[in-house]
Amino acid sequence: MAKVAVVMGSKSDLGVVKPAICLIKSFGVEVEARVISAHRTPEEAHEFSTSAISRGIEVIICAAGKAAHLGGVIAASTTLPVIGLPVKTDMMGGLDSLLSIVQMPSGIPVATVGVNGGENAGLLALQILGLKYPEIALKLCEYKKKMKDKINADDLALQEESKQF
Amino acid sequence: MAKVAVVMGSKSDLGVVKPAICLIKSFGVEVEARVISAHRTPEEAHEFSTSAISRGIEVIICAAGKAAHLGGVIAASTTLPVIGLPVKTDMMGGLDSLLSIVQMPSGIPVATVGVNGGENAGLLALQILGLKYPEIALKLCEYKKKMKDKINADDLALQEESKQF
Amino acid sequence: MAKVAVVMGSKSDLGVVKPAICLIKSFGVEVEARVISAHRTPEEAHEFSTSAISRGIEVIICAAGKAAHLGGVIAASTTLPVIGLPVKTDMMGGLDSLLSIVQMPSGIPVATVGVNGGENAGLLALQILGLKYPEIALKLCEYKKKMKDKINADDLALQEESKQF
Amino acid sequence: MAKVAVVMGSKSDLGVVKPAICLIKSFGVEVEARVISAHRTPEEAHEFSTSAISRGIEVIICAAGKAAHLGGVIAASTTLPVIGLPVKTDMMGGLDSLLSIVQMPSGIPVATVGVNGGENAGLLALQILGLKYPEIALKLCEYKKKMKDKINADDLALQEESKQF
Amino acid sequence: MAKVAVVMGSKSDLGVVKPAICLIKSFGVEVEARVISAHRTPEEAHEFSTSAISRGIEVIICAAGKAAHLGGVIAASTTLPVIGLPVKTDMMGGLDSLLSIVQMPSGIPVATVGVNGGENAGLLALQILGLKYPEIALKLCEYKKKMKDKINADDLALQEESKQF
Amino acid sequence: MAKVAVVMGSKSDLGVVKPAICLIKSFGVEVEARVISAHRTPEEAHEFSTSAISRGIEVIICAAGKAAHLGGVIAASTTLPVIGLPVKTDMMGGLDSLLSIVQMPSGIPVATVGVNGGENAGLLALQILGLKYPEIALKLCEYKKKMKDKINADDLALQEESKQF
Amino acid sequence: MAKVAVVMGSKSDLGVVKPAICLIKSFGVEVEARVISAHRTPEEAHEFSTSAISRGIEVIICAAGKAAHLGGVIAASTTLPVIGLPVKTDMMGGLDSLLSIVQMPSGIPVATVGVNGGENAGLLALQILGLKYPEIALKLCEYKKKMKDKINADDLALQEESKQF
Amino acid sequence: MAKVAVVMGSKSDLGVVKPAICLIKSFGVEVEARVISAHRTPEEAHEFSTSAISRGIEVIICAAGKAAHLGGVIAASTTLPVIGLPVKTDMMGGLDSLLSIVQMPSGIPVATVGVNGGENAGLLALQILGLKYPEIALKLCEYKKKMKDKINADDLALQEESKQF
Repeated sequence: MAKVAVVMGSKSDLGVVKPAICLIKSFGVEVEARVISAHRTPEEAHEFSTSAISRGIEVIICAAGKAAHLGGVIAASTTLPVIGLPVKTDMMGGLDSLLSIVQMPSGIPVATVGVNGGENAGLLALQILGLKYPEIALKLCEYKKKMKDKINADDLALQEESKQF
Repeated sequence: MAKVAVVMGSKSDLGVVKPAICLIKSFGVEVEARVISAHRTPEEAHEFSTSAISRGIEVIICAAGKAAHLGGVIAASTTLPVIGLPVKTDMMGGLDSLLSIVQMPSGIPVATVGVNGGENAGLLALQILGLKYPEIALKLCEYKKKMKDKINADDLALQEESKQF
Repeated sequence: MAKVAVVMGSKSDLGVVKPAICLIKSFGVEVEARVISAHRTPEEAHEFSTSAISRGIEVIICAAGKAAHLGGVIAASTTLPVIGLPVKTDMMGGLDSLLSIVQMPSGIPVATVGVNGGENAGLLALQILGLKYPEIALKLCEYKKKMKDKINADDLALQEESKQF
Repeated sequence: MAKVAVVMGSKSDLGVVKPAICLIKSFGVEVEARVISAHRTPEEAHEFSTSAISRGIEVIICAAGKAAHLGGVIAASTTLPVIGLPVKTDMMGGLDSLLSIVQMPSGIPVATVGVNGGENAGLLALQILGLKYPEIALKLCEYKKKMKDKINADDLALQEESKQF
Repeated sequence: MAKVAVVMGSKSDLGVVKPAICLIKSFGVEVEARVISAHRTPEEAHEFSTSAISRGIEVIICAAGKAAHLGGVIAASTTLPVIGLPVKTDMMGGLDSLLSIVQMPSGIPVATVGVNGGENAGLLALQILGLKYPEIALKLCEYKKKMKDKINADDLALQEESKQF
Repeated sequence: MAKVAVVMGSKSDLGVVKPAICLIKSFGVEVEARVISAHRTPEEAHEFSTSAISRGIEVIICAAGKAAHLGGVIAASTTLPVIGLPVKTDMMGGLDSLLSIVQMPSGIPVATVGVNGGENAGLLALQILGLKYPEIALKLCEYKKKMKDKINADDLALQEESKQF
Repeated sequence: MAKVAVVMGSKSDLGVVKPAICLIKSFGVEVEARVISAHRTPEEAHEFSTSAISRGIEVIICAAGKAAHLGGVIAASTTLPVIGLPVKTDMMGGLDSLLSIVQMPSGIPVATVGVNGGENAGLLALQILGLKYPEIALKLCEYKKKMKDKINADDLALQEESKQF
Repeated sequence: MAKVAVVMGSKSDLGVVKPAICLIKSFGVEVEARVISAHRTPEEAHEFSTSAISRGIEVIICAAGKAAHLGGVIAASTTLPVIGLPVKTDMMGGLDSLLSIVQMPSGIPVATVGVNGGENAGLLALQILGLKYPEIALKLCEYKKKMKDKINADDLALQEESKQF
């Protein structure tokens, strides 16, 4: 069974991260949800990262804000793909979080999604797993189909509704 | 055999993209290198994306600059993981490319690396493949080891050299 | 009779777009209001764009936020003028939407208006139509006149009012 | 015969503007090229704008940099569509020019293209004229076709070339 | 008797401008408060600017937001000092207003104060008048003195208060 | 006994500064809390800075917002380490405060912490004092330990809680 | 005879400041050119500012870069109008200098011109002096006239030249 | 004898860091210069940080660029004061480096100096040491004096030189 770790730098980020956790679980994938801080619990971060493969984890999502080092610190000690999820802050809408995560030096990539993009972090993890687990890839097709149907329904509703504008 | 597509929006982006192509090839992974524009060849983009799985492609890297829509457009029509590689521009050092790629709406993630981060785009693709292909994961460990040795050698050299400062 | 398409990437953008729809209708111009997503319904976007001319559409307004690819994707498959309307986001007040729309590569322009500038998107569409439909140009003169009268009335009121400051 | 005015705030902007002039001329459309400054020759700007329609002008392109007021000032006194072309500056790659042009208040839109987007300013003017002049629309289709062929040729070349990487 | 014009581009800017008006009046200087739009009432703007000297105006304050052209347009047609007051917007806290006002091309300066800096716009006008009207300069000394006393009182209060922290 | 001065440019910054004062006091270090403005009370600022050493002060924290000159002005007249604490503003989330404090010219450093980082300003002062006062260094170890325990407790709680997601 | 002080924070800023000095002198106004640093020579700055009026100075231009405190520090100790001239830096094209100068707190305005706007700083000083010295105001009219003639000549030349494009 | 560690994330940062090393040595303080990467040699970083106190280090300077995590990672495992030195990059002049270093979460401050501010990083380290080592404080007074003399000499030279402008 596939397994994704979802790590946040502070429990206050849970609101941003929860859509990722719920989405991944809804695909039947196991989630290890953790609070680990690159700065306050550096040893736990290192221990988590170096042991992740042995615990069966295949993708790691790291959510953090401001000088968001968590993704980079985790990526430093594993060859698993690490997804960085920047948390919105007051500094230009989270530009600090985004740049701290995405602008990684050569050699240690962090796969970054948009600011507060919890759902997309989860989807990206599932797309990565989909390469190895065909049933996940199948469910992603259904997910895409549902999104499309939703937009098409909105489109029809608006075409009707807008006649009254 | 694993296969990665590396797509650029304009052939002028080749300098940024080439490190990704060469790195992936050096891991023994096949690369399909393409020039496809989301705006100038939209049909080719759609055809490329919808047929990628059937051609054996498992990860897609999309490099583009300015209003960089290529990654999003490709991701719209596949469930494969899509890596976005923002190309540096004059607008605040590529912030336009970065935001156009990373700030994807919910439902269609693009795994974004840093501006002009060709090597990291390649590494991320390899990390993703490493889940399925253990020999790639092994080579990534060696790659990490070499980076570490390089830094350690630099460290020793500097400790010596700095005595003369 | 002139016809403008007003497309939004998500129905949640309707508040920003509605002033454009209402203004255009008030000039006696037909509006085709649509919800089409560049990422979630790419085939619908392509179909919409390639068939727009045949359905009598002469100008297309595309509203989208964040990595706002809709305008570029629509412009890729038509020679009609496409107006881009960036929707405000949390990222620096919509700078992500603005740059994703305005910084188009050479060959595929998108006529961009200000962030959340629904009324201006509508006016620009009418100005474009005014070249071909003299009655629209006439109404635009009246519209300009009313704006001027409004400012002049405000000016007189303030001159009076400010005596008490 | 169609006619476009191309105005720049300073003759030093000619390098950015010339691609627009040449492209428009190559479509057989007449160009009135002017140097008019919103700040140094405000009366000329007003005179130009109020008389543009009577001289047969149908679209106006305004190029300016820094606190780029030219487009707004011209748009204030005409109902013709005005295209704003921001010129690159040292301030964050032309963000000052871009914001000064695109963020127009309600009532006076300026159709903004990307920074230093001379070719796109010209193309947008032609797309607007194409609504009224079918032969221009036809030529735009050919132009789009050539761009596509160019990308496709680059694509084939790269597929070959990349075998040696 | 000295006279300052305080012009705003829209009556909705009155909240930002009122502190300037009230402060100037409190120094016994006459204020001409106006609503004039560079874009909606360009002729009124030109008329206002060219006639300002003859009406006894010595300094002009111009408040505007977004693509804030008012200060530049007024400065274009007078040799009086023009103070630009950028109004806060959603775009990065008023950076659009600020850059549109301060980044004037060579030859037409606008003396810019901070975003929403109504009081400072008024003070700057008074400092300029103080060169010619010694009684204003005297009152400015008192004003500075009062600010200093206020800070000193706050300082004493805090020193006391902070003992309880 | 160690002593830290905590200076703010306006009493309205107290909310940001108070966590620093309280934290430092909780370590048994004396605090001199002051309201001194670089601009409104420049003589007091100079007097404060030149006499700080003689009053036993060893570290100075300066909090200010917008064009935040306080730290630089204080640092100009002392060799004591000066910590700059940028206060959040409307301009891009305090980027104006941050750049005004951190971008000091060569020769006069200001040790800058994050926007609204009151606690961190206090901690940095304590870390500096810890070099000289071993008992402070000891308490900092305990402080770090408590932070770690808090994260670990959150981690355990989340692991439990997330089973229900 | 009128007198303007032109102060720079470092002699390396002379290239930016020299156009201001030369322009002011060309109007027959005396210039006191100085190198004074808010941070390295704070006492000289205070002495300069408090004695400026007694030395006959009527306007002060302050040029500085990065955390550019010079204008604010000078303005703190005088009621003379202070013009701030931001010097271009590597940080977003001088945005650090600009924000450090323009975002002054209430009570101490600095009349800011654009980044590297040496000529405009000089012109603004002359416009301020023009209120008191009619001969300067007259010369400013001639200066404006020459700028206008230059643009008009450029306009004619371009109209001719562009026929060959 | 006092001892400062100067760590850089890559040997390519040496040009930015060398002024710090040389300045500190010129004060007679020992320097341990190191190349340690938070991402490529995370174990070395942890080992360095946890053992720094036992090797007699009292202040640590960390220079890094882009997603600059080095300072935060080092600060996570020590109570010594850590100075962050952001290295200039292409992304808005080093804004990515600056925000990644300065925006640290509560509990782990990094004392940040300006982008490429090598000399200031060294001076700040010396100011911190000056609290404990009076001879360093004395030398800092001399250093400040020399800077002042240099500015005063420049001032005299300019006053003379500018007579010829």
